[in-house]
Amino acid sequence: MKAKGSNAERQLVEMFWEKGYAAIRVAGSGSSRFPCPDVLASNGQKTFAVEAKATKTNYQYFRKDQIEQLINFSQTFNSEPILAVKFSTKWYFFYLTNLSITKNGEYAIKKKDAEEISISFEELIS
Amino acid sequence: MKAKGSNAERQLVEMFWEKGYAAIRVAGSGSSRFPCPDVLASNGQKTFAVEAKATKTNYQYFRKDQIEQLINFSQTFNSEPILAVKFSTKWYFFYLTNLSITKNGEYAIKKKDAEEISISFEELIS
Repeated sequence: MKAKGSNAERQLVEMFWEKGYAAIRVAGSGSSRFPCPDVLASNGQKTFAVEAKATKTNYQYFRKDQIEQLINFSQTFNSEPILAVKFSTKWYFFYLTNLSITKNGEYAIKKKDAEEISISFEELIS
Repeated sequence: MKAKGSNAERQLVEMFWEKGYAAIRVAGSGSSRFPCPDVLASNGQKTFAVEAKATKTNYQYFRKDQIEQLINFSQTFNSEPILAVKFSTKWYFFYLTNLSITKNGEYAIKKKDAEEISISFEELIS
């Protein structure tokens, strides 16, 4: 699970660099006592704090505290909080405002809805 | 060596958070194929890309390629490149312009000169 996540993050970092952004993976993003995203990227004009997941299933959720941390971090760092999900082989990017929240406060994304509520990488970075 | 470096970086991250900055350690900063700093910190107004070292000796150098990477990263990310050295227990912060370069293109800092050519953490973040 952990390796899969790291590999997905590395791929994201590479995608950002290819498009002229400087991007890094955050160390210990799941274990740090400070809020932090998985990936940070900026081209000096736009800065993204990304929480990234990869799944082979048809459903991906993000815990409430993860989202809260992402928002808190972004408010201080002045970055745009973004969720990224790789369903099988394809990446989808989500603004928080486009997502529905479950009763538990989780952000839940179904693969079948992803196309409609996501933006593409090209839209994100342009 | 590696643990010492990571602990120093963690301490820096903590110092930034205490002063209202969002800060993270960069994963694989010594091994990534993309240029990256050790620590990134921003309060939304100032953003620092920090190459950090800790030493118990009286001398610390930074390799030419490390400095070049730090500069390259910062130009894209729009961060200020900073060197941080913890000599024994005390941190010193350096703007690149205040440092002398050896014949090999290294940046060399002697502990006895550190006080004079460094800035304090408070000066850095204010």
